[in-house]
Amino acid sequence: MDLDVLFLGTAGSSPSPRRGLPATLLRRGGDRLLVDCGEGTQRQLMRSVGLVELEELLITHFHADHVLGLPGMLKTFTLRQRERELTVFGPRGLRRLFDLLRPVIGRVTFPITLVELKPNEELERDGYRIAAFEVDHGGPGLGYAFVEHPRPGVFDPERARELGVTPGPDFGRLQRGETVGGVRPEQVMGEERRGRKVVITGDTAPCDMTRLVAWEADLLVHEATFLDEDAERARETGHSTAAGAAALAAAAGVEMLALTHISPRYAGGQIRDEARAAFDNVVVPRDFDRIEIPLPERGPPSLIRASDSPPQPIVEPAG
Amino acid sequence: MDLDVLFLGTAGSSPSPRRGLPATLLRRGGDRLLVDCGEGTQRQLMRSVGLVELEELLITHFHADHVLGLPGMLKTFTLRQRERELTVFGPRGLRRLFDLLRPVIGRVTFPITLVELKPNEELERDGYRIAAFEVDHGGPGLGYAFVEHPRPGVFDPERARELGVTPGPDFGRLQRGETVGGVRPEQVMGEERRGRKVVITGDTAPCDMTRLVAWEADLLVHEATFLDEDAERARETGHSTAAGAAALAAAAGVEMLALTHISPRYAGGQIRDEARAAFDNVVVPRDFDRIEIPLPERGPPSLIRASDSPPQPIVEPAG
Repeated sequence: MDLDVLFLGTAGSSPSPRRGLPATLLRRGGDRLLVDCGEGTQRQLMRSVGLVELEELLITHFHADHVLGLPGMLKTFTLRQRERELTVFGPRGLRRLFDLLRPVIGRVTFPITLVELKPNEELERDGYRIAAFEVDHGGPGLGYAFVEHPRPGVFDPERARELGVTPGPDFGRLQRGETVGGVRPEQVMGEERRGRKVVITGDTAPCDMTRLVAWEADLLVHEATFLDEDAERARETGHSTAAGAAALAAAAGVEMLALTHISPRYAGGQIRDEARAAFDNVVVPRDFDRIEIPLPERGPPSLIRASDSPPQPIVEPAG
Repeated sequence: MDLDVLFLGTAGSSPSPRRGLPATLLRRGGDRLLVDCGEGTQRQLMRSVGLVELEELLITHFHADHVLGLPGMLKTFTLRQRERELTVFGPRGLRRLFDLLRPVIGRVTFPITLVELKPNEELERDGYRIAAFEVDHGGPGLGYAFVEHPRPGVFDPERARELGVTPGPDFGRLQRGETVGGVRPEQVMGEERRGRKVVITGDTAPCDMTRLVAWEADLLVHEATFLDEDAERARETGHSTAAGAAALAAAAGVEMLALTHISPRYAGGQIRDEARAAFDNVVVPRDFDRIEIPLPERGPPSLIRASDSPPQPIVEPAG
């Protein structure tokens, strides 16, 4: 099952020529989950994977830079006569946000369901769950953990034969958890294998809850709005420094750390270098970069730069 | 005095990978006038001339694709601690729009003045005037004409000497309109020279008012949302076809026609070809293209493609 994270907007607060406002797309098999929807997100989607008819949208918090792409995207869905329901999840206050936006959005052609999530509330999906967790950004704010269900262990056909099971349908029964002729599944199945875990924080100071939730995650996408030289400002505004995010990633034992919410006041390289002093496997994705997370036995997560397979050019051919 | 029009967003209704939502920047000397502010405009500015502290913003009408970039841009001005006043002009209903947007925009650090313009109302500026005119888009909607004041004729020093005027300060007096020793200015000055005229329609069906206002304009920026094959749809929605816009440009005797509000359903080439059948000097600018309008005696307006001097790349260098 393919799993990746596509970075559609990696700037914080204000966009820059190179970075759009926050939006991150998690893709697992055929599922598409958009986390946050800053101004310009619909176009960032069009410029990469296309404006898919997202069914689920997760909002981390209601600061303007994370939500101002909503009205335009819903407008465009409407222009396309969308009929499919859209469910928007977010922390307490989501309904109030839509009360404010609705007059701006106007009429839409499809039902929108709003779900205010409580911290630690979980959504069951086919093969994984989405766990909302409380972050520390000075108001209602949620991070989201995407946690795959454990996978069954590997079936050992040799062992099954030794125990007298005949190859064929009985092998299948054992693998589905049934006991066959006195042979129990655990006798022929290897240990349960862990699923993958991706955690996306939204805006937050480094906090215990993120550290707990991100424990041994394959990928932690954490904000890094400031450098350590601006640590006081980070504390005041409920944001993280690159060093703070990296220390958390190290304490949580994550496999890879991806930093976002990058301020134009720093070069991406500064953010990365500061983080790398505390945690080795850190990347600072640019817009349209993506991180593939293979099954753990197939290798570690890897960053695929958009510059290696760029989105469509912004300048159309002459004609 | 330099005069140009920079196309920041040339799409209509929805953006496309290559075209942003409506925003057009008219620049004359040090003046910067932004017409409309679709979603993503702040970033289109950053990617071209920079996010200048615009002092005047002109809205043509209140459809979402023309205004949803406002909250984010005002937010960014606020993050930059802007103090300078911003004046927003628009048709009747501008105040109501801001009543809707204000809770979304939140606190700003600078005063915003809203001015609802009546059709045919004019704003005097240093060296030109901005004339609002009513368009035909099924609701309050204004186009804007930028009309330079006529320039004095060329001074004829030979003729002045023949009439007995001594070269020196008296030459200056005559050029400023004073009578010197019985010699009247009109005896030594050539005919008054016309200023330049640029007309931007916003969304509209072709209408008499545009034709009148655009009479002999150097540049008419007209919408062309549809091709003639969709003429009925254009009529129903208060939009223009490429052929309709071109016929109007021909009837108004404009020098150059630039078509915008381009739908992704057509290739830019189709729009241009249909228009060219009715009017020769038509261009379909792409985002970041600009049209320079030199003084009439120095030549006709010309389109400068962004592909010849592209904006900053969207992918930052590795590092």
